[in-house]
Amino acid sequence: MLKATVVVRLKEGVDDPEGKTIRHSLNLLGFESVRDVRVARVYEVILDSSPEDARREVEEMVRKLLVNPVIHDYEVRVEEL
Amino acid sequence: MLKATVVVRLKEGVDDPEGKTIRHSLNLLGFESVRDVRVARVYEVILDSSPEDARREVEEMVRKLLVNPVIHDYEVRVEEL
Repeated sequence: MLKATVVVRLKEGVDDPEGKTIRHSLNLLGFESVRDVRVARVYEVILDSSPEDARREVEEMVRKLLVNPVIHDYEVRVEEL
Repeated sequence: MLKATVVVRLKEGVDDPEGKTIRHSLNLLGFESVRDVRVARVYEVILDSSPEDARREVEEMVRKLLVNPVIHDYEVRVEEL
C-alpha cells in the first residue's frame, strides 16, 4: 500500500476569504501579532498500486478532481506504508 | 516575521465524510486502486512576534479556535520568514 499526500494551496494573489475570516477572528480574540492566515488542504490518498503507477495516477487525480489549476498550486508526495 | 504551520487532521476512527465522498468520486472516475482518502487542513499563520512567544501564542490559537480536541489531532511548525 502507498500513501500519496497532495497539498493544495491557493496561488499567491488569489483571495482567501476563509483565511481572512480566521485572521480577523484571531485578532478579535486578542492575537494582535497575526498578520495573515492562509488555508490549504491536504488529501491523503491510500492506494493499492506500484510506486511508478501511483505517481502517474495521482497526477491524473489532481487534474481531474482535486485541483483547479486557475487558482491552486499543489505538491505531491508518495510514500510506502 | 514568522510563519506557523498548523496541520489539523481528524483523529483515527473519526468519520471523514468528505474523504469518503472524494474516494467514491475517484473510484467512479476509474481510479480503482484508491482504498481510502482522508482530508486535513493546513493553517499558515504569519505572525509578527518572537519565536518563543510565537510557539505559545499558536498553541493558544489552536486551543481557542483552530482545533476541536475531541475529533482533531494537530501539529505545529514555526519557521522564520
